[in-house]
Amino acid sequence: MPPQSPDPVAIIGASGALGFGLALRLARTGVPVAIGSRDAARAGETAERAAALVPGGSFSGHHNAAAAAAAQTVILSVPFRNQAETLADLREALTPGKLLIDATVPLAAAVAGKATRMLGVWQGSAAQQAQEMAGEGVRVVSALHTVSAASLADLAHPLAQDVLVCGDSRADKREAAALIDRIEGLRCVDCGRLEMARTTEAMTALLISINARYKVHAGVGLTGLPAELWR
Amino acid sequence: MPPQSPDPVAIIGASGALGFGLALRLARTGVPVAIGSRDAARAGETAERAAALVPGGSFSGHHNAAAAAAAQTVILSVPFRNQAETLADLREALTPGKLLIDATVPLAAAVAGKATRMLGVWQGSAAQQAQEMAGEGVRVVSALHTVSAASLADLAHPLAQDVLVCGDSRADKREAAALIDRIEGLRCVDCGRLEMARTTEAMTALLISINARYKVHAGVGLTGLPAELWR
Repeated sequence: MPPQSPDPVAIIGASGALGFGLALRLARTGVPVAIGSRDAARAGETAERAAALVPGGSFSGHHNAAAAAAAQTVILSVPFRNQAETLADLREALTPGKLLIDATVPLAAAVAGKATRMLGVWQGSAAQQAQEMAGEGVRVVSALHTVSAASLADLAHPLAQDVLVCGDSRADKREAAALIDRIEGLRCVDCGRLEMARTTEAMTALLISINARYKVHAGVGLTGLPAELWR
Repeated sequence: MPPQSPDPVAIIGASGALGFGLALRLARTGVPVAIGSRDAARAGETAERAAALVPGGSFSGHHNAAAAAAAQTVILSVPFRNQAETLADLREALTPGKLLIDATVPLAAAVAGKATRMLGVWQGSAAQQAQEMAGEGVRVVSALHTVSAASLADLAHPLAQDVLVCGDSRADKREAAALIDRIEGLRCVDCGRLEMARTTEAMTALLISINARYKVHAGVGLTGLPAELWR
């Protein structure tokens, strides 16, 4: 028998830089990727572009809602200004039990402010807003904010950084981590409850500040952690 | 001629865990340390305790204000609930031109909340509150929040982590970094303006959450940075 092929993953906003990089990296590990965009034609183009970069990768292009309907795990990777609208569009497709990995960062750039500054989100963080907006039973985990989109999309670039994972259910976080840890060079770290996303999201703005200063794509690495992080 | 001995540094709140660890580590590099406490007798005891751990180290114990008066560089390492009161006490001693390195973290624990949660500080961060309260001409830099007090104080423990430095003057940050970088295993990273302390302070609460989960003393390390950080 062939090894069981992994379940497909939907990436909402996969035409954007972070979503596209994630699509490439996940597909390289054998995960079929349903690419979502607000514009189905653009999703199709993105899927073609991804397939050219990852021969053998499985990509399909869809309108966001159709992409989310096609997978049990949905990664939300849209600009903050589109997060609420996108989640409203996904309400039917995000059925109870699905895993929603929110990677949204409420940068002040969303309202023409600086990318080194954050907006105050009433719920505390974009992840908590996602949890409020997603339907009952959708399992929300926050992750992937601090991973550089440019580094992800550059497949020749070896990754070596931590992914900060927040969520109220350890089982859900473990499931998200098992997916993300397929990508070589990424290591998921359990950062606690979903509310900790207030800080992990803000670390994106901090990295943008550091990147501007040093002209690099910095990543987060934590020291002093045990070898086994998801027992 | 003997090599010039480094200038003394005052550590306000050096009887606390972080301040004490910093006192030990800095003294080991030859920096004379003026240990400040709200209670001069306690400062003297702390100086004796430090001298026993770092033979050859130069320690003196003072009331906070006298410690701050004795050095051009002052590290503020007090619980958030004491920050404003302490800065008011230091107003005379913190003369224009002095460098104030603020390591205060506004954990919700200050008001009997969780140590994984932050208080909202009106100015945006404890560092910005320090800047508002310190007299005109005091140069404020924010640093050292994410360094584990336990790891610092355990002199047998090799350090390997980054120190996130924020401030509005690059020259001031460079000066603070030159001091902190004397400690083997610490690497200072310029994180941008003082307002970025909103996030670097919050990362302490994030590390507390991670530490509780994994029973470790995690530290921050950034990846992808150039070798020379303070040109």
